[in-house]
Amino acid sequence: MIACLSSNLPNLHSTPTAPGQTTSEPDSKPQARKLKSSPQLNRWSRARAVRSGRKLDRLGHRSPQSSVNFKVRDRDGVDLEPERISDGEDNVEAMEGKSIYMVSDGTGWTAEHAVNAALGQFEHCLVDRNCAVNTHLFSGIDDVEQLMVIIKQAAKDGAMLVYTLADPSMAESAKKACELWGIPSTDVLGPITEAIASHLGVSPSGLPRGAPGRNFPLSEEYFRRIEAIEFTIKQDDGALPQNLQKADIILSGVSRTGKTPLSIYLAQKGYKVANVPIVMGVELPKSLFQVDPEKVFGLTINPLVLQSIRKARARSLGFRDEIRSNYSEMDYVREELEFAGRIFAQNPVWPVIVTGKAIEETAAVVLRLYHDRKHKCSMPRISKRY
Amino acid sequence: MIACLSSNLPNLHSTPTAPGQTTSEPDSKPQARKLKSSPQLNRWSRARAVRSGRKLDRLGHRSPQSSVNFKVRDRDGVDLEPERISDGEDNVEAMEGKSIYMVSDGTGWTAEHAVNAALGQFEHCLVDRNCAVNTHLFSGIDDVEQLMVIIKQAAKDGAMLVYTLADPSMAESAKKACELWGIPSTDVLGPITEAIASHLGVSPSGLPRGAPGRNFPLSEEYFRRIEAIEFTIKQDDGALPQNLQKADIILSGVSRTGKTPLSIYLAQKGYKVANVPIVMGVELPKSLFQVDPEKVFGLTINPLVLQSIRKARARSLGFRDEIRSNYSEMDYVREELEFAGRIFAQNPVWPVIVTGKAIEETAAVVLRLYHDRKHKCSMPRISKRY
Repeated sequence: MIACLSSNLPNLHSTPTAPGQTTSEPDSKPQARKLKSSPQLNRWSRARAVRSGRKLDRLGHRSPQSSVNFKVRDRDGVDLEPERISDGEDNVEAMEGKSIYMVSDGTGWTAEHAVNAALGQFEHCLVDRNCAVNTHLFSGIDDVEQLMVIIKQAAKDGAMLVYTLADPSMAESAKKACELWGIPSTDVLGPITEAIASHLGVSPSGLPRGAPGRNFPLSEEYFRRIEAIEFTIKQDDGALPQNLQKADIILSGVSRTGKTPLSIYLAQKGYKVANVPIVMGVELPKSLFQVDPEKVFGLTINPLVLQSIRKARARSLGFRDEIRSNYSEMDYVREELEFAGRIFAQNPVWPVIVTGKAIEETAAVVLRLYHDRKHKCSMPRISKRY
Repeated sequence: MIACLSSNLPNLHSTPTAPGQTTSEPDSKPQARKLKSSPQLNRWSRARAVRSGRKLDRLGHRSPQSSVNFKVRDRDGVDLEPERISDGEDNVEAMEGKSIYMVSDGTGWTAEHAVNAALGQFEHCLVDRNCAVNTHLFSGIDDVEQLMVIIKQAAKDGAMLVYTLADPSMAESAKKACELWGIPSTDVLGPITEAIASHLGVSPSGLPRGAPGRNFPLSEEYFRRIEAIEFTIKQDDGALPQNLQKADIILSGVSRTGKTPLSIYLAQKGYKVANVPIVMGVELPKSLFQVDPEKVFGLTINPLVLQSIRKARARSLGFRDEIRSNYSEMDYVREELEFAGRIFAQNPVWPVIVTGKAIEETAAVVLRLYHDRKHKCSMPRISKRY
């Protein structure tokens, strides 16, 4: 994570925020000024466009007319206009990469999740840093003044805006401001909420998460989730084998097959997970073979992937020596994986899942199988009732 | 979670799925038949529409023409048509509520997250079960035949479809099939991916998560997240106070203020969290007062909310006796909260967060403050680099 752009924001004050409060901006109703993209930004955008073989993007095309005459009104009828982009030092240049602003009147996690997933479609370009992207999440934005300050800043940064605003008037203000100020924007929650409203024949509340009118239901789901998390922590790393029969899912595998993060990920989704490490020379708990074998999952991993995970991990932790010691452990790792493989072969009901990919992905495979085994559906699915 | 509709799916076989495989449907290329909504479904939809004061929904309006002449072609040019909804026993009736189908060629978590967030807008109706909703998540759907089987089933169920399909031809097939078969549908990932593509000037890969062409980057982020989870588990419930200085965030509060689930939620986002319980008569670890106070957060809760959490929790766990014992503990709980309050007052740098709402919400408040304190931004934000 990186620091904010405070040094690049001459028009925004750094006001300390008290717990539970959000900042209010004294200069959120600026004087009318022209939006002007900096020469650097234009050069940079053009160079990018030429490199990518695309036509020049919107900044290069902005007509003088469109940059002068836009105005947007807030709820109180106050005219709001973006401030001039400073010449000379340019924010986008300073940030090395393009920015995505995410604004939410709730937690912002939906916007973050959606942007994260969408950015997965650009890994080929992000990974080698040819197109670095900076995301900025603004959560709990529940008044239009704050919203306009952020959108103005997005205009200055040449950023795009992704928003999840439950309040329809806030969403409308965001949309209008972005249209008028030429900021590409995407409403993540609006279309799906509208579709569900029409499907259910019920109007959405328009209340953001945590708003006074929205009750927090102390649902079974809520308690089940907390209980699952507490259970899973207590069961981590083979602890309390006598509790295995209480688990929904049991993960078994050698060290570094991702048992712990996977257990925790599944626990967050409401499943009680126990994980049992497989270690050569250590007998597995008897209870593992007494529980319903349909809930046990073997985890394995390609030894080469494990090697590269160890190398990369060692590098990320800055341990030069560990790289060598991991290399030399490879024979042992292979042997241990084969040992686990023999246990899995003796328990053919346990599905064997190959890990070494993102936790979310392995979790999806485990849950698909879990629900399929439980419900014997024609097509594996995870069903919930709201 | 509820069982699948296997008993209601006369045309779908229940085929066992081997680990790592997805089901292939032998009858996914059905004969041409008429789509017909059942009389029950129509009555039910009409009754709902009348109750909600809305105009009758699409099922009541479906013209005989539109239900006969639609066809969709899969990638191989095979005609696919939905099968007839069985008369008499109706799927939707059997499910008591409306269905939302979620289809993904990846993990499906983005679709699930977005639907979950959008359903938050209908809590007023979901909570009292006036409009129960059943969601069905189909993940890892990477061929068009499976996709069509699911969409046909959605048509039978009178469901809506929410999809995240990275492969543009899959997304196009889903869209066309839904249009032709009159299924309301929402593409969650498409619009945001397109907007980002045009913002970056780079084409999306079109590869779903886990596809062979998509590398899994063993990024620093990945290792940081796993390390954070492992750290947080080890530090849970005041364990290893000598490690407090290694934590990014320290949560302190009396029992049941949600320290553990909150710690785990934050750990999943890559933060090393330690939590320190406040218990009357037990001295807090000295190290808590030696670390940077800016990273310590006090958690408190309204005693009445705590009471209702305990009551609801006891009810959900089926412990009748605990309800009474919790009632009688109220004085002690109040005293303990006041004790914690005095500690917080002695450490005015620690922000005090009121919990008792959804974990995600409290996490959003904690992280907003954490980043604000760290980066002193004009507007609290969480920034990341991709």
